[in-house]
Amino acid sequence: MTNDNNDLATLALRDVAELVEEKLIKLLPKAVDLEQQVIDAMEYALLAGGKRVRPFLVMESSRICGVGESSALRVAAAVECAHTYSLIHDDLPCMDDDDMRRGQPSVHKKFDEATAVLAGDALLTLAFEILADEQTHANPRVRCELITALAKALGANGMVGGQMFDLLAENQDLDKIRITRLQRMKTGALIVFSGESGAILGMAEERRCQALRGYAHDVGLAFQIVDDLLDEEGDSDDLGKTAGKDSKAGKATFVSLAGVDAARTKAFMLTDQAIQHLDIFGDNAENLRNLAKFIINRAN
Amino acid sequence: MTNDNNDLATLALRDVAELVEEKLIKLLPKAVDLEQQVIDAMEYALLAGGKRVRPFLVMESSRICGVGESSALRVAAAVECAHTYSLIHDDLPCMDDDDMRRGQPSVHKKFDEATAVLAGDALLTLAFEILADEQTHANPRVRCELITALAKALGANGMVGGQMFDLLAENQDLDKIRITRLQRMKTGALIVFSGESGAILGMAEERRCQALRGYAHDVGLAFQIVDDLLDEEGDSDDLGKTAGKDSKAGKATFVSLAGVDAARTKAFMLTDQAIQHLDIFGDNAENLRNLAKFIINRAN
Repeated sequence: MTNDNNDLATLALRDVAELVEEKLIKLLPKAVDLEQQVIDAMEYALLAGGKRVRPFLVMESSRICGVGESSALRVAAAVECAHTYSLIHDDLPCMDDDDMRRGQPSVHKKFDEATAVLAGDALLTLAFEILADEQTHANPRVRCELITALAKALGANGMVGGQMFDLLAENQDLDKIRITRLQRMKTGALIVFSGESGAILGMAEERRCQALRGYAHDVGLAFQIVDDLLDEEGDSDDLGKTAGKDSKAGKATFVSLAGVDAARTKAFMLTDQAIQHLDIFGDNAENLRNLAKFIINRAN
Repeated sequence: MTNDNNDLATLALRDVAELVEEKLIKLLPKAVDLEQQVIDAMEYALLAGGKRVRPFLVMESSRICGVGESSALRVAAAVECAHTYSLIHDDLPCMDDDDMRRGQPSVHKKFDEATAVLAGDALLTLAFEILADEQTHANPRVRCELITALAKALGANGMVGGQMFDLLAENQDLDKIRITRLQRMKTGALIVFSGESGAILGMAEERRCQALRGYAHDVGLAFQIVDDLLDEEGDSDDLGKTAGKDSKAGKATFVSLAGVDAARTKAFMLTDQAIQHLDIFGDNAENLRNLAKFIINRAN
C-alpha cells in the first residue's frame, strides 16, 4: 500500500477519535460524593488514547448505511466503554497483570485494584445504558437488537468466554481451530459487533449486514494476527505494552503455531477477503478499505 | 408479628426461590471448550442459596400489576444475575475480602480471582441480555425502560458508586445524610428496581409505580439497618458470613451513629411506612406486607 492510504486512514481515525472522546466526556455520570473516584478512573481509562478502531468501525458502517452521526456516535461511545472495561479488567494482577496500558499506568496502578474492578463494572453498565436511551435510535426494537448483539459479543460465549479460555490455555496444546475460536470470542466478537452496528442502526437489508459482519470478522482476525506478529517481533514502545509477553507465557498463537511467514501471509489473505466483502458498497466504503490496509501495514 | 406471618413469608420466598433457580439454570449459556469454567462459576454463585428477596419483589410486584409469570420470572432471573455479580465482585480480596458467602466458599476461593472477576462480568452482561429479549415483554419500549432502570440502579450513581463510596468511607466522619445516600446507592437502588419492575412490566399507572418504589425503598433501608444490627449483635452462623466485620473495619452505619435502640426504632418505622405504601393494592399486596414484616422480624 502507499503511504497516502496510510495517512488517510490515520487522519480518518484521528477525526473519529476526537468526536468519540468529546462524546464520552459528555456521557460520563456526575458524582456528588466519594463515588467521584470511580468516575475519575472511568475517565482516565477512556481518555488514555488508543486508535479507536472499534468506534471507527461503528461510525463508518453507520455512514454507509445512511445513519445519522449523532446516533452512530452514541453507539461508538458505548462500544468504547465496553472495550475499555475489558482492558481494565484484563490488566488486573489476577488476569494478565499488566502495569502499563497505552504507555500509561493501568487503572489499578494509577488508582487501586478495587477502583479498577468497579470502573470496569460501571463502564460495562454504562455501555448498555447508552444503547437503551431513545437518543440512540427512535425505534426501541433497534435499541433492543443492539443490546442483544452487544451482550452476546461480551458474555460467556463472547469476550468474557474468550478471556477465560485464554487464561486456561497457557501451555495447553491448542490447534488452529481452537485458536481461531478463542480469538473470535476474545477480540473478534466486539469487532464484529462494531462493524454490524451500522447495519442494525440503519435497518439495512440482510446482505449488507452480512457483508459488514464478514468484513469486520476478517479485519478482526487480521488485526489479532498482526498484534501477535508485533508481540513476537516488535518492541514495547511500539505496542505501548510489554512485548513478547504472550510467547513468554507459553500461549499458543497463529504465529507460534504456523510461524511468522505463514501468519503474515494469512493476515494479508484475510485483508484481501475483508476488502472483497465491501464490493456492494462501492466507493462509499473507501474509508473501511483504507482501515483494512492500515491494519495490515502495521505488520510490514 | 406472629409466627404465622413469618411462616407464610418463608413459604412464599421458598416458592419463588425454586422457580427462579430453575429459570436461572435454563438461562445460563452453554460452553463448548475451556470457557466452561466461567459458566461453572456463574452457576455455582447463582445456586449458592440466599433468600431471593429481590426476585420475590419482582414476582409479587408483577403479580399485583397483572403481569404474566413467565415475563416476571425472566426479570426476576435478571435481577438475581445482577445481584450475584455484585456479591462475587464485592467478595474479592481487593474489595471486602470475604472468603465465605452464604455459608460456602466465595467464588474466588472455590475457583480463583480471575474466574471470579469474569463470572461477575458475565452475569452482569447476562442480566441485560435477558431483559433485551422479546420473551421478556412483547413491547420493546418496555424492555428498554427496564434496561435503563436497571443500568441506573447498577452504575456509578447506583450500586457501583455505593460500593466505591463504602470502600472510601472507612474511618471517615459520615453523618446520617451521607450514610443514607450511601445505602440508597449500594443496596437500595437494586431493591427499588426490583419493586418497580412489576409496574414497568405491567405498564401500570404512575401512582402504582410510585407506591411500589416507595415500598421497596423503605423495605430496602429497613433491610440494611437490620443487617447492620445483626452484624453488630449476631453471630456468623446466622449471617452465613463473618459477623462484626463492618464495625471492626471502622465503618459508620446507622447502628454506630444512632445506637442499637434508635436504629431498631428506625427500622420499625420504615417497615410501617413501607406497608402504608401498599394501601392502594388492597388485599392483593398481602405477600409484600408479609415480606416487610419478615424482614423486621429478623431484628427481634
